[in-house]
Amino acid sequence: MTKVEEEQTPLRHKKAEDFNEWYNEIVEKAELCDKRYPVKGLNIWTAYGWKTMAAIDGIIRNEMGDTGHSEVCFPLLVPEDQFKKEADHIKGFSDEVYWVTRAGGNDLDVKLLLRPTSETAMYPMFSLWVRSHADLPLKIFQIVNVFRFDTKQTRAFIRVREIHFFEAHTCHRDFEDAEKQIREDIEVMARLAAKLCMPYRIFKRPDWDKFPGAFYSLACDVLMPDGRTLQVGTIHQYKDNFAKAYDVKYEEEGGEHKLVHQTTYGMSERLLGAVVGLHGDDNGILLPPDIAPIQVVIVPILAKDMKGPVLEEAQKIMDELRKAGLRVTMDARDLRPGAKYYHWEMRGVPLRLELGPRDMKENKVVLIRRDNRQKAFVPRAGMVGEVRRTLDLMALEMAGRSEALLKGGIRDITSLVEEAPTGILRAGWCGATACGHEMEDRLGVKMLGTSYDKEEYSGKCVVCGKPAQEAAYLARTY
Amino acid sequence: MTKVEEEQTPLRHKKAEDFNEWYNEIVEKAELCDKRYPVKGLNIWTAYGWKTMAAIDGIIRNEMGDTGHSEVCFPLLVPEDQFKKEADHIKGFSDEVYWVTRAGGNDLDVKLLLRPTSETAMYPMFSLWVRSHADLPLKIFQIVNVFRFDTKQTRAFIRVREIHFFEAHTCHRDFEDAEKQIREDIEVMARLAAKLCMPYRIFKRPDWDKFPGAFYSLACDVLMPDGRTLQVGTIHQYKDNFAKAYDVKYEEEGGEHKLVHQTTYGMSERLLGAVVGLHGDDNGILLPPDIAPIQVVIVPILAKDMKGPVLEEAQKIMDELRKAGLRVTMDARDLRPGAKYYHWEMRGVPLRLELGPRDMKENKVVLIRRDNRQKAFVPRAGMVGEVRRTLDLMALEMAGRSEALLKGGIRDITSLVEEAPTGILRAGWCGATACGHEMEDRLGVKMLGTSYDKEEYSGKCVVCGKPAQEAAYLARTY
Repeated sequence: MTKVEEEQTPLRHKKAEDFNEWYNEIVEKAELCDKRYPVKGLNIWTAYGWKTMAAIDGIIRNEMGDTGHSEVCFPLLVPEDQFKKEADHIKGFSDEVYWVTRAGGNDLDVKLLLRPTSETAMYPMFSLWVRSHADLPLKIFQIVNVFRFDTKQTRAFIRVREIHFFEAHTCHRDFEDAEKQIREDIEVMARLAAKLCMPYRIFKRPDWDKFPGAFYSLACDVLMPDGRTLQVGTIHQYKDNFAKAYDVKYEEEGGEHKLVHQTTYGMSERLLGAVVGLHGDDNGILLPPDIAPIQVVIVPILAKDMKGPVLEEAQKIMDELRKAGLRVTMDARDLRPGAKYYHWEMRGVPLRLELGPRDMKENKVVLIRRDNRQKAFVPRAGMVGEVRRTLDLMALEMAGRSEALLKGGIRDITSLVEEAPTGILRAGWCGATACGHEMEDRLGVKMLGTSYDKEEYSGKCVVCGKPAQEAAYLARTY
Repeated sequence: MTKVEEEQTPLRHKKAEDFNEWYNEIVEKAELCDKRYPVKGLNIWTAYGWKTMAAIDGIIRNEMGDTGHSEVCFPLLVPEDQFKKEADHIKGFSDEVYWVTRAGGNDLDVKLLLRPTSETAMYPMFSLWVRSHADLPLKIFQIVNVFRFDTKQTRAFIRVREIHFFEAHTCHRDFEDAEKQIREDIEVMARLAAKLCMPYRIFKRPDWDKFPGAFYSLACDVLMPDGRTLQVGTIHQYKDNFAKAYDVKYEEEGGEHKLVHQTTYGMSERLLGAVVGLHGDDNGILLPPDIAPIQVVIVPILAKDMKGPVLEEAQKIMDELRKAGLRVTMDARDLRPGAKYYHWEMRGVPLRLELGPRDMKENKVVLIRRDNRQKAFVPRAGMVGEVRRTLDLMALEMAGRSEALLKGGIRDITSLVEEAPTGILRAGWCGATACGHEMEDRLGVKMLGTSYDKEEYSGKCVVCGKPAQEAAYLARTY
């Protein structure tokens, strides 16, 4: 079987029937990654996947620039003694870290760990960098590889052991300034998610599930089509917890020395996992136009006698679209059109532009949307504008469809009798830890937390029946 | 002492008097990195340094795109058994690798090493990726962190244990096609070096110093101001050495299965080290305009009564320059101009633009070059063009001065009597390994190799006196 034939065998799994297997199959078939690397949980970013991730990183970098964060890069290796300074933190991660114990043929005097996240690498330096109030706020970020020896089943982009990771770390004069930062982070998430056509909800995680060392943790959850939620981002208020452990202090105008208040913001390649899961279908993935490495693929229909002129015109069209800032490629391979359609649909290119001899005669091009295969005949003259409009409309509709699924996937429950719960459950909660755990255990779900934006709720705790001040959100999670 | 005062204390070391200490001091004072991370050989990329390195990476990415390479990202961790498949390679690196032996509280069944370079991570996958002649050439690259437990004295950017690394790997049908790739790599180096204003020479390393597993190795050496050479790039012809070990084969049109021929191309953060060393002076670093995060700093001279109008005009100037695609910042801090000059000179911003009340009246701006402090009064109307011209001219002159130093630093020797050799020595060599080693030992230098471009040479071997077919180049090296 040739590569082209192999490529054209349909997906073995259907999204609606077996989401998990469909996902596992499609990430490779769309050439986002190669999972055959011989170490569990470590995958290879192949060119197309890496380009897509780089586009997501690019959006994040721009957002960070616009909000006054500086990009840095800290070492991967953290010495054991620095790591152990914050007791809660080490407890939270000690089962998940990789240890470097030997180098150059000898045992190391001080063991080094591969960062699972960079608090313990950065904060000893922050205590040197921050001296006076004039140094605050300190806002930095990095996009790096981090490592977590996670024993759960691995899954491309969603649960891997080497993680492509974004982490922002900030220091502030006081709690309120750190709170402002958290509101800014939430706005960044909103703008990023809009570009990914990715609806989400922000929850304040229950105390028993907050980040090790945090005062409180917010998380952005996406509802995946199989009814489980995927945490794609976290925002933590550390208060002065880490500042105490790492002695990060500043001098006030009056000469007084105070501990800083800190926040962090983390996201990862899970963003790409969410995009694949939300938008893909049985023909392949579907990339939001803002992150698609190729937004438009031109497929010239090469009838024998008109081959030259059609190719020439297709080239002109490509030049025009590129000049307008669009990412375009042309597929002039000697293959039947169907094989090309299959190829580019699998890779989620949002828009296909066809041009045949008759279109040329009629001064038209054909636009075919990847999401619904809608075909539009568009006058050649207004082509660039129409391509843009179609991409914009498509992005809006992708986001709209996903938001409708999310909304429809959240439902109220008033008792703990649920068969195979799916989606996000909303339940009255008195706020007691015991009741929270009982909900989790009896429903077989995790508590996502309470809504970050205070919401009106009047009801009773589904466990103890006491008046519930808030609603708890619960789901099976990735 | 405030930060501003601290910043204005002159450098403790002069470049001409103690290059090493000057270098060590300036990399931190120019805010390229922070060396206080508590693990030897691991430094922190602070924002300004990381931005500069990212600019260099950007040039490399463009070059790779233009020459048909795809960017990928392989895992950091390599399993011991894969690593051991190529005998020469393991021998060359076994003393330098970091070993991950534990994870999640347990010893690992298969030990993992941190890649010192990625041959052994990639080539098992190449044997899956390459199947037919249609898959060739395969051209990929990645920009990642690699690790070498180097026991020599560490030095920022030049000798570190976590290295910011570029590596391109290619597979070809035959030796000649691989040779073509090497010629392409050499052209890439030329274009990159021009943008870094960094003269260099390419040598074919002697057999005893080629890359472990290579058929032959080329290296790009820069002559640093202290008379030692710095290897900033390497290009290797592997022939089918690795293909044999990792079974990377393709099917020819006729059905025959053949081993691929491979090449690699490596560069690292040493490029930045070379830039710092070549162009810096006792006032700070000097960044080539193509990679300077800030190409022009505007310093408005804020006399009391004209403060508002001058600031407004300076803002307009910044907008105009930015619109023209230049990277510009304005320093409107409430500091005396001298402090600002000092600050930006230290950070190597190529051009300073001053604007005071009198300049405004006379419809002029003042341009001051960072390299020679030459001042030019430029009519406001032609400002953008003049800024560009000045930057271009400065880059040419920076390259020219460095090239003159390199040329002047290469000299012929005809005997092995040399007191404290400095610069690059050229000596007749019969080609025998023993004579090569004797040159190295008696002169206290390393052999860089022979010129890659065949050069005319007639003379005698400086060791045995036999006719020399070639000249050997020798130097003390980093």
